[in-house]
Amino acid sequence: MTATTWLDLPADSPFGVHNLPYGVFTAADRPGRRRIGVRIGDRVLDAGAAARAVGSPSELLDAETLNPLMAAGRSTWREVRAALTEWLTDAAHRPAVEPCLLDLADVSLHLPFEVADYVDFYASEHHATNLGKIFRPGSEPLTPNWKHLPIGYHGRSGTIVVSGTPVTRPHGQRKAPADPAPTFGPSRRLDIEAEVAFVVGTPSTMGTPVALADFAEHVFGVCLLNDWSARDIQAWEYVPLGPFLGKSFATSLSPWVVPLEALQHARVAPPARDVEPLPYLDDRDAEPWGLDLAIEVALNGRTVSRPPFATMYWTAAQQLAHLTANGASLRTGDLYASGTVSGPEPDTRGALIELTWNGEHPLKFPDGTERTFLEDGDEVSISATAPGPGGLRVGFGEVTGKIVG
Amino acid sequence: MTATTWLDLPADSPFGVHNLPYGVFTAADRPGRRRIGVRIGDRVLDAGAAARAVGSPSELLDAETLNPLMAAGRSTWREVRAALTEWLTDAAHRPAVEPCLLDLADVSLHLPFEVADYVDFYASEHHATNLGKIFRPGSEPLTPNWKHLPIGYHGRSGTIVVSGTPVTRPHGQRKAPADPAPTFGPSRRLDIEAEVAFVVGTPSTMGTPVALADFAEHVFGVCLLNDWSARDIQAWEYVPLGPFLGKSFATSLSPWVVPLEALQHARVAPPARDVEPLPYLDDRDAEPWGLDLAIEVALNGRTVSRPPFATMYWTAAQQLAHLTANGASLRTGDLYASGTVSGPEPDTRGALIELTWNGEHPLKFPDGTERTFLEDGDEVSISATAPGPGGLRVGFGEVTGKIVG
Repeated sequence: MTATTWLDLPADSPFGVHNLPYGVFTAADRPGRRRIGVRIGDRVLDAGAAARAVGSPSELLDAETLNPLMAAGRSTWREVRAALTEWLTDAAHRPAVEPCLLDLADVSLHLPFEVADYVDFYASEHHATNLGKIFRPGSEPLTPNWKHLPIGYHGRSGTIVVSGTPVTRPHGQRKAPADPAPTFGPSRRLDIEAEVAFVVGTPSTMGTPVALADFAEHVFGVCLLNDWSARDIQAWEYVPLGPFLGKSFATSLSPWVVPLEALQHARVAPPARDVEPLPYLDDRDAEPWGLDLAIEVALNGRTVSRPPFATMYWTAAQQLAHLTANGASLRTGDLYASGTVSGPEPDTRGALIELTWNGEHPLKFPDGTERTFLEDGDEVSISATAPGPGGLRVGFGEVTGKIVG
Repeated sequence: MTATTWLDLPADSPFGVHNLPYGVFTAADRPGRRRIGVRIGDRVLDAGAAARAVGSPSELLDAETLNPLMAAGRSTWREVRAALTEWLTDAAHRPAVEPCLLDLADVSLHLPFEVADYVDFYASEHHATNLGKIFRPGSEPLTPNWKHLPIGYHGRSGTIVVSGTPVTRPHGQRKAPADPAPTFGPSRRLDIEAEVAFVVGTPSTMGTPVALADFAEHVFGVCLLNDWSARDIQAWEYVPLGPFLGKSFATSLSPWVVPLEALQHARVAPPARDVEPLPYLDDRDAEPWGLDLAIEVALNGRTVSRPPFATMYWTAAQQLAHLTANGASLRTGDLYASGTVSGPEPDTRGALIELTWNGEHPLKFPDGTERTFLEDGDEVSISATAPGPGGLRVGFGEVTGKIVG
């Protein structure tokens, strides 16, 4: 049963006390100081100030990033979440806590944590199949390894930016198959990838893999991510060592980290597996870590897709087990993303290259405009909700970005 | 003309005052405190202590990593290097500075800087050709993009370890072409890659590429790197998104960062280019950034290869220009490596997969032992020198690692 807050909040708010995502903000009263905020409705609780106001230990909540809290481990995450819930539901705390609330409209949001390593997976069977058909026509769309392991690769941490940061159209080498040689210039096939990202809190030791069952000991929370992709640059560069400049110019992250604990009601069984997983990936007898997130992708304010995260073939728990199976260690702030979320239906695909089938079928809007890939000035927003307790929804912060030419 | 040090040092030491590489050490007198050291002969100057002893500003040299010094920019790098040279050559400083010298044997060396993003290139034409022949027999060994751009990909920063750190043999999925399905277990084809790595000091702004001519404004120094590779894991996983777990278990870095300024005499013209480079990569009229490093790879104390870095097709300046051509920004601590250095001759190849031609021709040692890939207990050392002033050589710190089963 979810407690009721003393705040004046719509009963069905996706940012009620059942959610309490963490972010980092600045506000006019202390402009240079980054502070940890907790979103509640359309307000932001200055968490460090609230802790001090109620006389609670505040060191982890007084940091300028979430990293110290994330590093503190699961039992601390639970204690802090319980304390926040108490402050926002027990009316006795209202006099102390209420002055620590700011309007969401009055704060600037920043990257909520320092990103250590960034890994991007490729876990949607529908997306991988669609891209295989588009990029490698005439071959089997899925490579032979696809159903044996969650394919992934490292991306660039230093160009992960918070939602709202403008994205400069990248330049690079582009070569269509018919061109005699590559040319250098702005990408003509700038795309989005709607993804769900998992943030590691508790580090692990080099040489010791993280078992499937230990997923929730290590993963602190969940964000939305737009893995902007320059398809023309990517197509020319990616054989044999994978995507590089086609991705590394910018990756946008939602400002609110939804605690994994807030997603207990969103857990669902993943799709049936066609290939028997090797033991370290075999979750058939484990607690399921499929997540029933309903994602929405909007282009210039119009919804263009509704990707269902529950259709992902590989779960985040399997991805973490795979990522560490070779002994690679985890650091606090490691971020790994699902890969583009695409469902089976055409209007549930999470990238323009799929939605327009490589540009052959432009999206047509009621105002008569069309899109194949992104044009300068286009704005993309990705949002999501998930089932919460008692019929409530758990809201994710949007990840938005506007293309600058 | 190089000044003469007041230290008792062999005249031809590769670690004379013409070199002065930076590292980070701990020693018994202050065991918990990491300190910046400068190698001179077989001694280490406690740089922060020396600065204080001579009454010089010491903040950058009193840090626990090189990052603050690296971030300070090229004019500061020159000033600090000039000061270090003066302290070690002007006999008037001897009474103050000499007590700040420790024996190399008495210190523990650590990772000299916090690594931000790590990128690995693939810049040796001989290596790429050999691997193409081995991995993709019957196809053109070089992919069509290879001579148009320096192919690279992001690796894992969190598993970069300092020389001397034991390397645990990784487990993973392995599948030989004839196997019906992959199995999970220890890599049976554990290999090395002898590489040269470049460390970024001065950051850059997102959206603004770094021109070829600005290479030396951004790159602080040069290390040796062993990009340990599990060939069986890599072969099964790498299509279509590139190497991942076959590399991410460990990457070893030499403890000493040779300042780029110490390598002025090592600069040579790169090989003639067969394909005209696009303007952002065209260094034909620029100052050359080929580097004449003589590398030596030893397995259990026996030299198995002498890769010549001057044969690399793409230079580090071209790699940096490419890495940022899409607007990706640089952070202090970004590290990028050359890819395996292999020369044209069989005994100049920088990886066992090439030296043994995919294990078909084992290396045979005088004691009757053989090697295809690495066995538990094997120790690999990579060392290098480069031309310095007046016929001297510039030494690099070795990068070593022993395989633990």
